[in-house]
Amino acid sequence: MDIVHVERKILQKNDDIAAGLRKRFTDSGVFVVNLLSSPGSGKTTLLERTIASVGGRLRMAVVEGDVQTDRDARRIASTGAPVVQIITNGACHLEARLVDDALESLDLDSCDVLVIENVGNLVCPASFDLGEHHKVVVVSTTEGEDKPLKYPKMFHVADVCIINKMDLLPHVDFSVERFRKYATEINPGLTFFETAAQPGNGLDGWLAWLRSGHQRCVQATAARAR
Amino acid sequence: MDIVHVERKILQKNDDIAAGLRKRFTDSGVFVVNLLSSPGSGKTTLLERTIASVGGRLRMAVVEGDVQTDRDARRIASTGAPVVQIITNGACHLEARLVDDALESLDLDSCDVLVIENVGNLVCPASFDLGEHHKVVVVSTTEGEDKPLKYPKMFHVADVCIINKMDLLPHVDFSVERFRKYATEINPGLTFFETAAQPGNGLDGWLAWLRSGHQRCVQATAARAR
Repeated sequence: MDIVHVERKILQKNDDIAAGLRKRFTDSGVFVVNLLSSPGSGKTTLLERTIASVGGRLRMAVVEGDVQTDRDARRIASTGAPVVQIITNGACHLEARLVDDALESLDLDSCDVLVIENVGNLVCPASFDLGEHHKVVVVSTTEGEDKPLKYPKMFHVADVCIINKMDLLPHVDFSVERFRKYATEINPGLTFFETAAQPGNGLDGWLAWLRSGHQRCVQATAARAR
Repeated sequence: MDIVHVERKILQKNDDIAAGLRKRFTDSGVFVVNLLSSPGSGKTTLLERTIASVGGRLRMAVVEGDVQTDRDARRIASTGAPVVQIITNGACHLEARLVDDALESLDLDSCDVLVIENVGNLVCPASFDLGEHHKVVVVSTTEGEDKPLKYPKMFHVADVCIINKMDLLPHVDFSVERFRKYATEINPGLTFFETAAQPGNGLDGWLAWLRSGHQRCVQATAARAR
């Protein structure tokens, strides 16, 4: 049972680094979101559209986690937002120390919201705190409504669930009602947003949530400074 | 760097158990496939349809790997095929020792083809040999054509790639040609099959491949017995 002890030690060390990161984020008034999903759920496209929609009103930055390639980072870079790529070289999740390294290349004072796009995986990333304020899980309607039942930990640790690719709903066997029921049974406090790839499709709630998160963050920083 | 050594030891031990399993499978004339994909790519539906299509001509059995719940196993059981559920309790991949345990509940002499449906994850399952004869990776057209670039190891170790949900092609931004190009650059020997959820959609190639795999397996067993 050696591996269990090793894993516990790794998680404890990760949590310590994450706590330091969270303090640093809050002190800088930066609202930080850990964006999680299966491969291909549409996280990067959602981020591109989010950055385009908030324009200059909310200065966004992105840390991209990938097993291999800087493809997603290049997509984000073309929006003009600051982006740092972490390549995990085979590891299936980001860890706090990697985010800590990435911050060396990012100026926190010049951003309001930082999104950490995790490696596409519904299992291990759920266990690793990256110092974020909230975990947001993205599920697309093509993945099947049973994902909360099969990956309960992810839905347990997330505060927000984005149901993406709503435009494909007529073509797939997916009941939004049943999906929400399954997810809510695991986590009654989940906030849901429904989004789609086409412009004008339901980003408003998600954008408002990001803005109010940043506001709360700034207020917390100000209160602490008094 | 402790973790690296632990991982190497785990992988070595896994490979030893897997080699024993493969010998056992071949000795029994059972053709074994390790089915891999992201969550929600349609593995279980593909399996249900495969079992229904081969009917009694090929006796199929299934080992189901899931992080939680026996939902998929119950779906397979309703087809009448023998099925054993492995619940990994949080682990993001199957290991050979778990398959070895599962075989206690499965009569190899009464099956021709065994499909091991791995945990939905494109990263770690690529590293764990389960004693299978071939790894088959399933990708759905809704996941994006860049998956081979982002998860190269999975496409490197697979022998077959099933492009699933071909029926959704008109509704998504996915070029089959580019996907095949990316995958083939990583693994020039990949065999492709294109499938869809609707009955009658392109299962023929995949079924013929399973049948010929079983034939080769039976011939190998006979040659060894002479």
